[in-house]
Amino acid sequence: MKIILDAMSGDNAPLEILRGAIMAKREQPENEIVLVGDEALLKKVADGNNLSLSEFEIIPSKYTVSMEDPPLSVIHEKKDSSMGIGLKMLSQNEGDAFVSAGNTGALLAGAMLIVRRLKGVGRPAIGAILPLANPVLLLDSGANITVSEQNLEEFALMGTVYMNKIYGVESPRVGQANNGTEATKGLPLQIAAFERLSANEKINFVGNIEGKDIPFDACDVLVTDGFTGNMILKLAEGMGKMMLHTMKDLFYTNALTKFTAGLMKTKIDDLKLRFDSSEHGGAPILGVRKPVIKAHGSSDAKAIKNAIYQASCFVESNINGEIEQLIESCRSKFGK
Amino acid sequence: MKIILDAMSGDNAPLEILRGAIMAKREQPENEIVLVGDEALLKKVADGNNLSLSEFEIIPSKYTVSMEDPPLSVIHEKKDSSMGIGLKMLSQNEGDAFVSAGNTGALLAGAMLIVRRLKGVGRPAIGAILPLANPVLLLDSGANITVSEQNLEEFALMGTVYMNKIYGVESPRVGQANNGTEATKGLPLQIAAFERLSANEKINFVGNIEGKDIPFDACDVLVTDGFTGNMILKLAEGMGKMMLHTMKDLFYTNALTKFTAGLMKTKIDDLKLRFDSSEHGGAPILGVRKPVIKAHGSSDAKAIKNAIYQASCFVESNINGEIEQLIESCRSKFGK
Repeated sequence: MKIILDAMSGDNAPLEILRGAIMAKREQPENEIVLVGDEALLKKVADGNNLSLSEFEIIPSKYTVSMEDPPLSVIHEKKDSSMGIGLKMLSQNEGDAFVSAGNTGALLAGAMLIVRRLKGVGRPAIGAILPLANPVLLLDSGANITVSEQNLEEFALMGTVYMNKIYGVESPRVGQANNGTEATKGLPLQIAAFERLSANEKINFVGNIEGKDIPFDACDVLVTDGFTGNMILKLAEGMGKMMLHTMKDLFYTNALTKFTAGLMKTKIDDLKLRFDSSEHGGAPILGVRKPVIKAHGSSDAKAIKNAIYQASCFVESNINGEIEQLIESCRSKFGK
Repeated sequence: MKIILDAMSGDNAPLEILRGAIMAKREQPENEIVLVGDEALLKKVADGNNLSLSEFEIIPSKYTVSMEDPPLSVIHEKKDSSMGIGLKMLSQNEGDAFVSAGNTGALLAGAMLIVRRLKGVGRPAIGAILPLANPVLLLDSGANITVSEQNLEEFALMGTVYMNKIYGVESPRVGQANNGTEATKGLPLQIAAFERLSANEKINFVGNIEGKDIPFDACDVLVTDGFTGNMILKLAEGMGKMMLHTMKDLFYTNALTKFTAGLMKTKIDDLKLRFDSSEHGGAPILGVRKPVIKAHGSSDAKAIKNAIYQASCFVESNINGEIEQLIESCRSKFGK
């Protein structure tokens, strides 16, 4: 398998990206990793940090898509960027998956326009695993700020396959984020989506999920528009961070509490992991023809390594094939 | 001052409502409290629990608006309910404020249609204090699932007065919940509201606030539509609850950790209070002619006492007068 890695994008690029690639290669030596970036710079940074890039192919790129660049820059003025070239390679079968910690909007636009949508998918979506006790895949987590009820149904199908293949959930429970549990709650979008999700027998729809129930294992896949999804994801992350701050503060009360915290280290570390977005690797862009993984902008080496691992699982478990089949089997309902 | 109390509504009515009234009367004996409810039932419950209702006037009511009743029931088939009668009394100046733990939709509809809107206010809103380290007033927290940019501007003005008068915040910072900080982020609503909020010199607008920044003292008043507001409020409550569960679990590791938890009791109790919605009393309905306070449906006696106290502060600080003045001073901008 060959994973294409955007070596230039993200807050900590290129150093942490290179370190992540080296960690990934050590864990899965059977996978090839191709670095896309400014060759001279990558070599200089590697040399300056005693890293060897001898195991990697490097594909040179001229530019980097910045966080401020408009989404479409990746197919226009910055098509020769690390992101643009990586996506192009992916679309031309010069690799099996692409990982980037860069500009989300540009990565999504590039995934749609260069890699192209899977057959039958109206809107690709960015999935994110919420930082909770149990993994909950949030779709869409920010890509499409407005969606249709059919898009939400597609998200449900794509999320079902992903949670089954990557997390081994037998029959993933799908919920819709809403302001009440009743079928009549929400905006016209949620009301229409409730009907579609209930009627589709390929979806294990467990109903509307209120904010208060999201942290308590209410579902495995949570579908919503990207505006609400962004709010849910970011607020959950923020609350988790606040929680860790508060606990730190609590344990710094005095010497005994510090000592006790030492004894509970394993449990506290578990908790940190739970709220640590780098643990889940990256966010998959679901609904495009080949796997594209969006790593967190602030990814460190471990996060990059996990995102590469996730990309390899995505390829191995043939998620895209399963999604196409599942959507095809529902096609008559979509009226296509 | 005379506070009208719906003695029949809420999960723990009437017993906890009566207990709350007694606690409030003990703390602020100068305030009159009028109970609206089924007189025979109230007396029976009081007798059965050794409570004396001798200090309270009781206004009899025939029905109770249930959580399942449609909002407009309070002005139609259930206008003689404890909620309907209480709101009617308020509108006829037979009291200074009304407190109810009942059906939110019915209370809002009744407040709008019986008590009526303040001059210049298009949409009243329900304010909720988010369970964070610092108090953040969320407007709207669920009453109006769709709003206009002008509504959001009104929410900002009403919230400014409330946080100044009730929490003593000098020049409350107003933020707009959004999926990014830039002025161009969000749906057309957020983009248009950003412009209005920025242009209004009576509002200390600090910009768009992302979910991740909400828990970290980013603003004093957070404006948003009721759908998003409901999601923010409920998710923050849910995450807080999960946090307390997790800490409890952590402290039950062994005897030493339990002992340590005992030593940190004050700090842990502080934390519980932070996530305890009963501490902040109730949610004010802002934008109606007289103060209406929505207590949490699961209110216990302490929550009811706090809601009554909050109602008295609302009256004393002349919040409604200030809101009318402030909105009047912005009237030309509203194009009225």
